[in-house]
Amino acid sequence: MSDELRVLVDRQAIVDVIHAYCRNVDCVDAPAVARLFTTDCVVDYGPGLGGPTHGSAALEARLATGLPRFAATSHHVSNIEIELDGDRARSVTYLYAWHRFPDDTPDAHLFAQYHDRFVRTDDGWRIAERVLKVAGQEAFDVAWHPIGRRSATT
Amino acid sequence: MSDELRVLVDRQAIVDVIHAYCRNVDCVDAPAVARLFTTDCVVDYGPGLGGPTHGSAALEARLATGLPRFAATSHHVSNIEIELDGDRARSVTYLYAWHRFPDDTPDAHLFAQYHDRFVRTDDGWRIAERVLKVAGQEAFDVAWHPIGRRSATT
Amino acid sequence: MSDELRVLVDRQAIVDVIHAYCRNVDCVDAPAVARLFTTDCVVDYGPGLGGPTHGSAALEARLATGLPRFAATSHHVSNIEIELDGDRARSVTYLYAWHRFPDDTPDAHLFAQYHDRFVRTDDGWRIAERVLKVAGQEAFDVAWHPIGRRSATT
Repeated sequence: MSDELRVLVDRQAIVDVIHAYCRNVDCVDAPAVARLFTTDCVVDYGPGLGGPTHGSAALEARLATGLPRFAATSHHVSNIEIELDGDRARSVTYLYAWHRFPDDTPDAHLFAQYHDRFVRTDDGWRIAERVLKVAGQEAFDVAWHPIGRRSATT
Repeated sequence: MSDELRVLVDRQAIVDVIHAYCRNVDCVDAPAVARLFTTDCVVDYGPGLGGPTHGSAALEARLATGLPRFAATSHHVSNIEIELDGDRARSVTYLYAWHRFPDDTPDAHLFAQYHDRFVRTDDGWRIAERVLKVAGQEAFDVAWHPIGRRSATT
Repeated sequence: MSDELRVLVDRQAIVDVIHAYCRNVDCVDAPAVARLFTTDCVVDYGPGLGGPTHGSAALEARLATGLPRFAATSHHVSNIEIELDGDRARSVTYLYAWHRFPDDTPDAHLFAQYHDRFVRTDDGWRIAERVLKVAGQEAFDVAWHPIGRRSATT
């Protein structure tokens, strides 16, 4: 396989992992989500949600408890940028996530980015590190990592 | 062409069909939408919208009547996952669809998934079956197919 | 490289430019945005925003002033359709853009399309022309170019 083709095949495999994450989160399948990560992964949804989770087992436990707290979610990802480096990769993925609560709380909207580090394992590409950075939120009131927007130079 | 390259070329061709659907729906071009489907297609937008439509001619007639009922729409698709099997394929596509009505009704938002079956025809890839499954809706009050979210194990 | 592979590599390079535009806009990096365009580009955000801007230098000056007027933005692109023609390309990209203002003005939402013309330069693919066409807006009150929706034939 040529180098150019290899890059495209690797990109698609990584994109497939990012999409499987969303689908399994929205179906509340915590074990399926956890299998997309390395066993020693670090996942940081932000300071308002308790800081980094270490390891896919802890991630699975956390999601098994946390995901059912919503009545429904839908995680729409796009703008996927991937920088490949052999068996490693870094990526930035935009996220528009919709959340419905089981009570009358208004639906919450998140406009965010996943900043990921991937590694190629014997089982395929896996997420070794995920940091959620947030551009903005509606009807959420959570402390997130910022995306790094420059301030006005006034 | 290598098998790996063939897969990527087929994927892109299928993705192009999914995108053309959205663009032509939003421009209210029912004939152009219908041409993306096989003549014997089955399209199921859900029980609240009358159940399955059989055949691209019936689909075109339905869309020619239904699409102009909105003042505007915008169908944003992402998270496209494709499973190829020779001249057939299955795909799941996330949809965020925005709808404006001609009266003062608030804009309706749909957070959903297209579950499609594709076939390769002499004219290229076509949609043979499309089922719309919905994670949630705002300002709509329609009965949809669910995405299959697991309930909390309490 | 085969023609089929060349097309896929060119597509990915163009998609990367489209994504870099969004990321740099949302981080308020006007110079980085301007570098994605040809020096003689034409960028038309619509009649309500002053009509076409000519040249990447003028675009950078405009964005350096305009982008900090928002408190935050998030530009989610999808549905990217690309028509390649050697060293030139045309593309249509869907945009869902979220905007927060520094005061109590409600967040503004834009459901739109970028209609772009790309050229291959010595530095890679660059945007030579961008026209923003809008399907609809919420909490904005700006005159845009329409997407070309057909009216009901009543």
